Amino acid sequence: MNDTTLAATALALSARDETLALKDLFAYEHPADIAGAIAEIADDDPLKAWELLEALPLARQAETFGYIDHAVQADLAFAAPRAKLARIVTEMNADERADMFNEMSDEQAEALLPALAQAEREDIRRLAAYEAGTAGAIMTSDYATLSPGLTAAEAIEKLRREAPDKETIYRAYVTDAGRKLVGAVRLQDLILAPSRALVGDLMERNTRAVSAHEDQEQAARQIARYDILALPVVDEEGRIIGIVTHDDAIDVIQEEATEDFHRVGTVSPLAANVRDAGIFLLYRARIVWLVVLVFGNIFSGAGIAAFEDTIAAYVALVFFLPLLIDSGGNAGSQSATLMVRALATGDVRMGDWGRMLGREALVAAMLGLSMAAAVSFIGVVRGGPEIAIVVASAMVIIVIVGSLIGMTLPFVLTRFNLDPATASAPLVTSVADATGVIIYFAIATAFLPLPG
Amino acid sequence: MNDTTLAATALALSARDETLALKDLFAYEHPADIAGAIAEIADDDPLKAWELLEALPLARQAETFGYIDHAVQADLAFAAPRAKLARIVTEMNADERADMFNEMSDEQAEALLPALAQAEREDIRRLAAYEAGTAGAIMTSDYATLSPGLTAAEAIEKLRREAPDKETIYRAYVTDAGRKLVGAVRLQDLILAPSRALVGDLMERNTRAVSAHEDQEQAARQIARYDILALPVVDEEGRIIGIVTHDDAIDVIQEEATEDFHRVGTVSPLAANVRDAGIFLLYRARIVWLVVLVFGNIFSGAGIAAFEDTIAAYVALVFFLPLLIDSGGNAGSQSATLMVRALATGDVRMGDWGRMLGREALVAAMLGLSMAAAVSFIGVVRGGPEIAIVVASAMVIIVIVGSLIGMTLPFVLTRFNLDPATASAPLVTSVADATGVIIYFAIATAFLPLPG
Repeated sequence: MNDTTLAATALALSARDETLALKDLFAYEHPADIAGAIAEIADDDPLKAWELLEALPLARQAETFGYIDHAVQADLAFAAPRAKLARIVTEMNADERADMFNEMSDEQAEALLPALAQAEREDIRRLAAYEAGTAGAIMTSDYATLSPGLTAAEAIEKLRREAPDKETIYRAYVTDAGRKLVGAVRLQDLILAPSRALVGDLMERNTRAVSAHEDQEQAARQIARYDILALPVVDEEGRIIGIVTHDDAIDVIQEEATEDFHRVGTVSPLAANVRDAGIFLLYRARIVWLVVLVFGNIFSGAGIAAFEDTIAAYVALVFFLPLLIDSGGNAGSQSATLMVRALATGDVRMGDWGRMLGREALVAAMLGLSMAAAVSFIGVVRGGPEIAIVVASAMVIIVIVGSLIGMTLPFVLTRFNLDPATASAPLVTSVADATGVIIYFAIATAFLPLPG
Repeated sequence: MNDTTLAATALALSARDETLALKDLFAYEHPADIAGAIAEIADDDPLKAWELLEALPLARQAETFGYIDHAVQADLAFAAPRAKLARIVTEMNADERADMFNEMSDEQAEALLPALAQAEREDIRRLAAYEAGTAGAIMTSDYATLSPGLTAAEAIEKLRREAPDKETIYRAYVTDAGRKLVGAVRLQDLILAPSRALVGDLMERNTRAVSAHEDQEQAARQIARYDILALPVVDEEGRIIGIVTHDDAIDVIQEEATEDFHRVGTVSPLAANVRDAGIFLLYRARIVWLVVLVFGNIFSGAGIAAFEDTIAAYVALVFFLPLLIDSGGNAGSQSATLMVRALATGDVRMGDWGRMLGREALVAAMLGLSMAAAVSFIGVVRGGPEIAIVVASAMVIIVIVGSLIGMTLPFVLTRFNLDPATASAPLVTSVADATGVIIYFAIATAFLPLPG
């Protein structure tokens, strides 16, 4: 059942007061799916969404609530009776809870915090203290620790006692007396070991960890690169303060890919799902680059104005204008697209620029020649052989110049610590357009006899 | 140490025959990092790469080899002495091994297969039988199964015996006598349960699974959505034949994001890393759309040609041409970018089109009015009030039309079962350009007095 069908079914049952059937329906669905349906309903009617959520047992309410998008969670939380919300929030995973508070406005958070118990309040404050986008902001405090002096049997017994509270016990972290991270041990290895073996001897040393203030993307990339389940997060003194889990890593990777995707398409990153984003949010995310690019186009306009005599004498040249400047822009944004993504995934690094440049020039020359062949035919038909030669030679140069600009810009942006995805493709198009206009008309003016 | 530094250090030690120091160096690095360095070296000198790989103990050789990009693996395999390669391949994870064979040409695979033992050959043939891009192609056969009649203690004992061979024992799959998947049980729950409890009573029923022929993206999305470690893969009869693990899911999600990113930038998906891709591969990935878009631009050119009289009478209009048509294209590709990504992540579904359309029109009207305000000033300066009015009103209409085209195209492509990412933004730009030319000059021709 997809979210919409599930939402419709749940609404229908609820409208007919079929509480038992509703509970039955939810009993067979995964909390992630119920969350999807409830988020859809919350869109139109947050109070109804709360009513449906309450058809679930409390633990499942919290789990389901944890699967809802953070932005929708914050809206829902605002609509809920405070005591009800406090019960759910107390049951939630520590990191889901902290993430939700990070999304809330200060007023929303201040309204909710007093309703929680002391322990939860402190946990939230501690986890929410890290800036959004850092490893600290996505970490959870649900991890298990062991000391190196325990035997395997004692360690298993300790994990067994603590298990119900922990997000994962498949890897426990080994800390010294000062809570400093000294290693990690897999549950698997504890089970396989003789029961008297010491954790200190079974553990892997040199456990990989990130600092809480590091970029969440760094943490996610390490999890992806080393195929690990969770990455410990440490403070300045090397004490473990949380873990980032593989499911958070997937979320971060998807989120960052979406942001880069939007940036390269000149849309500023949206905090919300496009489907639910407000009109003004969408307007703000788009208007800045649209206006910036207008001014970029003025250079093209100025380039055209400089050659008005040539244009007046050969109006046929205007026919090829969009085609030529767009080809330079298209080739350039292809190069930019390839570089932006390769820099983002780490496939290409800053030092590779020189090496890539030569190859790009070669590929661009091949592309330019193919394009020139394609347009020279149209050139002959539309404007005669002279125009065809001008158009074809302009095409080769424009495609090469556009590609080199497109390849280089992401490196330049990275060099100045800007995100290379930010509008790379359209910036390239603007620059390539203006350059293309000048190349085209300069060749035309040099080659074609001007009257007078 | 990054890959390049590690590669340089390893090469230097090897050149000075410092075998012990080299072994020491590698002993402290993660196999994923050694793999990165070896892939860099393989680029220039595959034989040297093999020599360095052999400085590792055999099990670590296999693990390191498994972390190398599949395309580079296949090249390396081709350069290796067959007996040496066979030893490593036998040691590799079953799914890494099958993935590598999927990347090889038929000749490469046929050359290597006879060197392997019967069991490995069959395992590879079975895993490699599934088409690239399906769940079957990325699954591993390293999973543990239990029967429902075992007690918790017996189950732990069985997992303990099998553990060293399995990719994960944190979740074991429960199968009936016919190997049909009937449930799954977490190691954690086996440990927590009384030792006489039955697996059949401890397991979760209704375990989520995918069919081997389903898209790998479907499997990855389920793992991401339900925050699970591994997803079982079943055949037509519901028998478990493999699992897809969370690290495969991350790889798939990254790969698909890269493909969509490339597609939207008119680059056909590349099998290889951009850094290592050959010149002709890059040429082929780019030329098709560049040429297609040339023909798209001919419509713009034809539009311009139809209004040559107006242009000849008001050459100043040409100044605003790139600006106006680019603004329509830019607004349209913003909309397309938002929709392509939202459709890919499932944030927006086909049924949402109608609902999105009204909102998009509103946002576009706001954007168009802002842009018109920005350009009307330049219009007055460059061409007088009449030109300014023509340019401003053309801007509003062009931005609205461009945005609606941009929003709709990804839905249309999806409707016809095409990937909406494929060149959406540039296709939108082409269509919006041609439409923009006609809107602009039609307004100009209607509004401005023509001589004669």
